[in-house]
Amino acid sequence: MGQLTGGDPSLLRRINSAVVLHALRAADCATLTEITRVTGLSRPTVEGVVEDLMGAGLVVEKAADESVARRQGRPARRFRFRAEAGHLLGLEIGSHRVAALLADLDGRILGAQAKDVDEAAPADERLERLRTAVAELLRRAGVPRSSLRAVGVGTPGIVEADGTVRLGTALPEWTGLRLGERLSRSFKCPVLVENDANAAAVAEHWKGAATESDDIVFVLAGLSPGAGSLIGGRLHRGYGGAAGEIGALHLLGREVTPETLLSMTDEPLHPLDEQAVAEVFAQAREGDKQARAAVDRFIQRLVHDVAALVLALDPELVVVGGWAAGLDGVLEPLRNELARYCLRPPRVVLSLLGEAAVATGALRLALDHVEEQLFAVEGTVTARR
Amino acid sequence: MGQLTGGDPSLLRRINSAVVLHALRAADCATLTEITRVTGLSRPTVEGVVEDLMGAGLVVEKAADESVARRQGRPARRFRFRAEAGHLLGLEIGSHRVAALLADLDGRILGAQAKDVDEAAPADERLERLRTAVAELLRRAGVPRSSLRAVGVGTPGIVEADGTVRLGTALPEWTGLRLGERLSRSFKCPVLVENDANAAAVAEHWKGAATESDDIVFVLAGLSPGAGSLIGGRLHRGYGGAAGEIGALHLLGREVTPETLLSMTDEPLHPLDEQAVAEVFAQAREGDKQARAAVDRFIQRLVHDVAALVLALDPELVVVGGWAAGLDGVLEPLRNELARYCLRPPRVVLSLLGEAAVATGALRLALDHVEEQLFAVEGTVTARR
Repeated sequence: MGQLTGGDPSLLRRINSAVVLHALRAADCATLTEITRVTGLSRPTVEGVVEDLMGAGLVVEKAADESVARRQGRPARRFRFRAEAGHLLGLEIGSHRVAALLADLDGRILGAQAKDVDEAAPADERLERLRTAVAELLRRAGVPRSSLRAVGVGTPGIVEADGTVRLGTALPEWTGLRLGERLSRSFKCPVLVENDANAAAVAEHWKGAATESDDIVFVLAGLSPGAGSLIGGRLHRGYGGAAGEIGALHLLGREVTPETLLSMTDEPLHPLDEQAVAEVFAQAREGDKQARAAVDRFIQRLVHDVAALVLALDPELVVVGGWAAGLDGVLEPLRNELARYCLRPPRVVLSLLGEAAVATGALRLALDHVEEQLFAVEGTVTARR
Repeated sequence: MGQLTGGDPSLLRRINSAVVLHALRAADCATLTEITRVTGLSRPTVEGVVEDLMGAGLVVEKAADESVARRQGRPARRFRFRAEAGHLLGLEIGSHRVAALLADLDGRILGAQAKDVDEAAPADERLERLRTAVAELLRRAGVPRSSLRAVGVGTPGIVEADGTVRLGTALPEWTGLRLGERLSRSFKCPVLVENDANAAAVAEHWKGAATESDDIVFVLAGLSPGAGSLIGGRLHRGYGGAAGEIGALHLLGREVTPETLLSMTDEPLHPLDEQAVAEVFAQAREGDKQARAAVDRFIQRLVHDVAALVLALDPELVVVGGWAAGLDGVLEPLRNELARYCLRPPRVVLSLLGEAAVATGALRLALDHVEEQLFAVEGTVTARR
């Protein structure tokens, strides 16, 4: 309770600084008077904080509009947040491609770069492809590496808090890889590693199909399905980071995998062969009965996985992404079956971000990290049992 | 940010009051000097607050120990929290019985009362049985009804925030029942209604098998299974209060219900006939092959349900309750199968509270409510995006 009775001057300065930055970032630009009104701080405090923030390069005075100046005499000085004071990367490391997004401190996208990678590529090669993509992206955008404040990364597998992949069967040499540490060698800023479906859930909530809901399940549908969920707007990682790893569900209900269900021969498809999958779906669309039956089996599988998630979590909204999002007719059966099995069926929609979802979510996680450092002032007065 | 720059005197008084109560409740009893040291408040503030709390009946001066007084001259005055200043009820309304627990403001149990009720009893009769149990309990304990500060209730079904049962198939006339409102007529204090499995999860975390973990799934195993989960120590209700309503899962994997699986004839058991279930289990224990096969089928079903929950939520710990908790050998197959299917298998233990779990959890929810009113001071200094 010291903050109320005594008070820590450096904490107070940090709080005031965060409050002013927050106000400036919400407005396009603002005068000292406006900041004073919005924040409830005193004029001298605001002046001091703005001076400090200008010194730190985070705030700049906006050049006065000439015509206004002539009309009204000396105009009030206006200040704005310098979103260009730092940059963020959102990275995806997938089985077939690596991708990178670059943004400023407002999260505005400044550029993107993606590269194909062989599904059998060893970890070193995969990371090298990513580094090349990032270098090209930074060069093209004219952003120096030293300007990066945080890097977010989305990748398949169970990811521990320190960025180690505890288990990742979708990519070669992924299990046990200290991914965060490896990538940290390329960047001087914090590197945050997250499961790909979790990142995609965050992305759809930020600027995709789930901006209106705080309780969502994102299903990254594919041959190796995964899911991410937000509860009350916050990512639910699970106790060991394995929440939503529903790949094994198909082993429970029926002893069959998506690869088997989608196969039109006695041999299952290769788990990562999306080309073969696309062909089955194309043939189904063209009316091929065998292909249609395979797709139906696959959709039943998806329904089972999603229903299990929905019954466990009771989200408001389910977003379907991954390549299954491109399927004709995956939505209708999903909705019908969920209505049949769930006591309170959620809305079901397709991903809006498509293949950009994972990198976009990784970017948002980087932005969250920076915002926490720059803007967040946690509640300091709390006394609960 | 007004609290920092200006400050609301009544808020400040509330905060100080909560802080002092919190400190007194944590200690057995304390002197003004001790309270001053623990809270960081000034001596005059502490004196004023303690005076106010004594006026409200929540704090009392402890009689000085005579021998100490004689040895040391005038001893410092000691104060303690009056846990007896109010009372709480935890109620369970189940298909076969209603139960009530009475506690003081420290959550110490003062008495219990349970009554059998017919599974086919209409809602009015069921509630009347509950009212009788409560009246007997209060009379026996000598606690006047006016002393009740909060009442928690656990019952099967999806329960909305206002205490209405949105859907409850386990009890007759339960769906649509405005249970919170109905019970409020019997009590002048707040009545909090919660799903039974959710309440049981809270109870096991409070004083059962899950006191060491904040990320748990509680499975109320039975013919009509349900589950409750805590995430980071907080109850996860889901967007519509339906989280963990896994009863429909069995429809997905295999088109069979527990009633069918456990039947040894062509006819399924009655969904609520726990007597018949107990017989099957007894015969299985005695070596009857047909019964053993039925039990095995049932356990497979339970494994499937639990695995779906675990894959979706990734808890640290699974607690198995309900009557299945009494089964020989339900734990081993569960552990083995979860280890097979889950990327990060949780620990699996049996409920410690048994049939007291639901009422105990309901009591804890009532206690939470009172603590929030008396002791909680939410963070008041927050500035986030």
